[in-house]
Amino acid sequence: MQIDLNCDMGESSNPNPITSDDEIMPLVTSANIACGFHAGNPMVMARTVQLAAQHGISIGAHPSYPDRVGFGRRVLEATPDEVKNDVLYQIGALAAFARANGVALTHVKPHGALYNVAAIRQTIAVAIARAVAAFDPELGLVGLPNSEMEKAARELGLRFIPEGFADRAYNRDGSLRSRREPGSVFDDPRRAAEQALQIVHRRTVTTLEGETIPLDIQTLCVHGDSPAALGVLQAVHEALEKDGAAILPFSNAKKQAQNLSISFPRPPTSI
Amino acid sequence: MQIDLNCDMGESSNPNPITSDDEIMPLVTSANIACGFHAGNPMVMARTVQLAAQHGISIGAHPSYPDRVGFGRRVLEATPDEVKNDVLYQIGALAAFARANGVALTHVKPHGALYNVAAIRQTIAVAIARAVAAFDPELGLVGLPNSEMEKAARELGLRFIPEGFADRAYNRDGSLRSRREPGSVFDDPRRAAEQALQIVHRRTVTTLEGETIPLDIQTLCVHGDSPAALGVLQAVHEALEKDGAAILPFSNAKKQAQNLSISFPRPPTSI
Amino acid sequence: MQIDLNCDMGESSNPNPITSDDEIMPLVTSANIACGFHAGNPMVMARTVQLAAQHGISIGAHPSYPDRVGFGRRVLEATPDEVKNDVLYQIGALAAFARANGVALTHVKPHGALYNVAAIRQTIAVAIARAVAAFDPELGLVGLPNSEMEKAARELGLRFIPEGFADRAYNRDGSLRSRREPGSVFDDPRRAAEQALQIVHRRTVTTLEGETIPLDIQTLCVHGDSPAALGVLQAVHEALEKDGAAILPFSNAKKQAQNLSISFPRPPTSI
Amino acid sequence: MQIDLNCDMGESSNPNPITSDDEIMPLVTSANIACGFHAGNPMVMARTVQLAAQHGISIGAHPSYPDRVGFGRRVLEATPDEVKNDVLYQIGALAAFARANGVALTHVKPHGALYNVAAIRQTIAVAIARAVAAFDPELGLVGLPNSEMEKAARELGLRFIPEGFADRAYNRDGSLRSRREPGSVFDDPRRAAEQALQIVHRRTVTTLEGETIPLDIQTLCVHGDSPAALGVLQAVHEALEKDGAAILPFSNAKKQAQNLSISFPRPPTSI
Repeated sequence: MQIDLNCDMGESSNPNPITSDDEIMPLVTSANIACGFHAGNPMVMARTVQLAAQHGISIGAHPSYPDRVGFGRRVLEATPDEVKNDVLYQIGALAAFARANGVALTHVKPHGALYNVAAIRQTIAVAIARAVAAFDPELGLVGLPNSEMEKAARELGLRFIPEGFADRAYNRDGSLRSRREPGSVFDDPRRAAEQALQIVHRRTVTTLEGETIPLDIQTLCVHGDSPAALGVLQAVHEALEKDGAAILPFSNAKKQAQNLSISFPRPPTSI
Repeated sequence: MQIDLNCDMGESSNPNPITSDDEIMPLVTSANIACGFHAGNPMVMARTVQLAAQHGISIGAHPSYPDRVGFGRRVLEATPDEVKNDVLYQIGALAAFARANGVALTHVKPHGALYNVAAIRQTIAVAIARAVAAFDPELGLVGLPNSEMEKAARELGLRFIPEGFADRAYNRDGSLRSRREPGSVFDDPRRAAEQALQIVHRRTVTTLEGETIPLDIQTLCVHGDSPAALGVLQAVHEALEKDGAAILPFSNAKKQAQNLSISFPRPPTSI
Repeated sequence: MQIDLNCDMGESSNPNPITSDDEIMPLVTSANIACGFHAGNPMVMARTVQLAAQHGISIGAHPSYPDRVGFGRRVLEATPDEVKNDVLYQIGALAAFARANGVALTHVKPHGALYNVAAIRQTIAVAIARAVAAFDPELGLVGLPNSEMEKAARELGLRFIPEGFADRAYNRDGSLRSRREPGSVFDDPRRAAEQALQIVHRRTVTTLEGETIPLDIQTLCVHGDSPAALGVLQAVHEALEKDGAAILPFSNAKKQAQNLSISFPRPPTSI
Repeated sequence: MQIDLNCDMGESSNPNPITSDDEIMPLVTSANIACGFHAGNPMVMARTVQLAAQHGISIGAHPSYPDRVGFGRRVLEATPDEVKNDVLYQIGALAAFARANGVALTHVKPHGALYNVAAIRQTIAVAIARAVAAFDPELGLVGLPNSEMEKAARELGLRFIPEGFADRAYNRDGSLRSRREPGSVFDDPRRAAEQALQIVHRRTVTTLEGETIPLDIQTLCVHGDSPAALGVLQAVHEALEKDGAAILPFSNAKKQAQNLSISFPRPPTSI
């Protein structure tokens, strides 16, 4: 039982940010770092990437629609070409900070409205996947399981990393309940911890209406942008550890798999 | 007699840009492409990089202070750390488009006020050079000859490419006459062509006051952001060709030098 | 036969704009001035408002979704509250420049995607109308005839000014053909002039498919943001004048009406 | 002994702001509200203006250089014309929200670097004063006593409101110690309360070096953008009340003066 814990980070903009990134970092295994379109800026990105590199955490780009005022949570009717180029721009910008710290990006996870649109709209999912493939086909693409994003990633030969949420309510079709609806975000650490355990352990999640649906994921997201974030993350982390789950970066799993394939050479294709 | 011709490109923002980039591209050997801070945006960057790649032209980042309203022409009292991270961000963003086109960046040329400040202020020059070195120490840094930028580049082991201007008036200390002063920008193609010939041929330039000063450069800039730009560039290009100058990218010179060092192996260090 | 000619102005951003605003201004009777969200900035707004004031032209705010990169042509899923406050902000900003020039705003015309969404979505139309009414209930609201914007204006007691387009193709339901479709924008001055005459004279317009539909408007828009703009506007202006149409600001018509009501006092309500 | 307490407000940008504006509002008599250039946005402005109007607090515009990334704390070499138009734009935008709430702006207080530059540079101080006068000559202009801003306000016939700081260290020339220097901002509520009492009561302030200098002000600023802000403000408020100071808006003082001049009519100019 192995799970990656990811958190969206570097999402403050103010020079005196009141965030908990310093305390969150040691508790996660992957950081999705804002690239300046919905939040963040070069100074915040530099500091957040450095912090993640110091903690040995997997670093991913967290690109968004260009909508700082709306924190990237509003759908923008951008064309697939616009989305592709917006994502490429943001991956490149973040990758420069990784490079300056001697590390490489491991993944890309779209933010907010872009994440949600990419789950259901094929053209946008493909546009994102193309940007990722054009930049580096070794990058993983994080998204909703069974989504258009998963299909697009697979079509383009990218590694897809299905994601679950410890602190968000699910609809019966496996989509996330909209933030605008009551009860969609869990502030209660215990509740989030329970959902995390269920997802990791039983590969299911239970909707607000009480229906239990299958959910097979490789990374678990805990949000970092609410005052309750740190408490929720601590509770989830503790519950998973107590339960014996191995909290490891998905990129690690990949490396182990690669090492495996190296030490266990393929059988000869012909005699 | 060999010279690189460079032009600042991708400096429009409007979706229906009225620029001459398409016509300028075949006449230059290096393109400095705006990175979205003073001008440009992901769509314009994608198109401009693709155009440059198709023409086999050297592609450089053209980073700026974050000042779109002022077109990057206003000094901003940013700290060296802020400048370093702003430049790193912009290089990375542009490099992503180069990568998507299967080419690599060859150089970085700061824009406008940042270029001018870096010529005279050591801390800012070093900040820019550090950003370039952190991203890729093989990148050339384009700037005013004998400037703080030249010193910073050399200190950090970067290749420095001294730049001259065909269409700008010089002060007697080798600095550029401020755009706010009359006569600082030449709109007359013939005048620009004459100055280009003088710079390339005689390694000197003559100030508005009539004083001739030495000017030793490897790349010659012709601006692309005025209605007169194309005419000026055509006149400069024609004059240089007629005069027998080899219009070649500076990066080419470098590769030739590298090839040279490969085909003429070093003598053994010991007998 | 009286008609107002309006044009969207101040839509450049560059400090050295290559636009025809100076030549367009004398040919129109109303200027819709960009407020910095899709185009324009304080310097451009100051200059454009001053120019309009000098020519005695009606000045209107031309608010947009906050989308400079997309020139305000992309739909953004903003809430009605967000739209209301975005519009209020932009009207206020532009009104400050009018006030500094001793004139008052006469109208508001939403830009691009906001205009199109307000034509068909009631909540957004009402949000815009509320912003206008909150700022000044005397302001006119310019929009598509028979649209949700017309309904919203009337419900809130605002003067609605139905608008037609000389240089855009119409669909049979009276909506504008999308800019993404071929043939949607007329670059041919003669074609635009003919459509202008038909609209003003016969109160109809003919679709690309050849169907003639009724179109009853008080202001006619000619776009100013294409290279062909000035030629189109000149052709339209000349054709209307030759035809004997009175090219007058709609706000003038209003004043005449007011003067009328003053000089012809109401009959006593009782004897 | 009467004093106005002012605070910079609406300086968050995030849709889920972690600020104390709701708790600060009842404790101050004037709110300087960010206008979107260094912080704030239409939604935040709408909410902050409404909150201030509900509490009957004086509302002022808090314009800045266009520098969101640097929170308006970095000097930008903008021309006086650019500054004038930036300030005019921001006053107008905020005034629209005041108007929508049935109240009027009472004052303008420049933010951060613009405030500091206006204290010492005549051209910038005059540019700001011109913007204020062009919008409404009845608006007060808040700034450092004995500064260029004071001179500019008086020259243009504007009411100048000299400002002191409860939580900032002073230099011996009456300027503020730079935020980059240690000890420049007081986080200790008791220290701020003591300085407030000294300023209001004795019309002096004591520098970090122990020198006591005269300081004659009409409004006292307590900052709202640090985690310590609320505690500092509460301590200052309590100390002033306990000491018998009348905490009243400066605009009130003005109205009382006006009322006075009305109830005590001028003597007839001739017999």
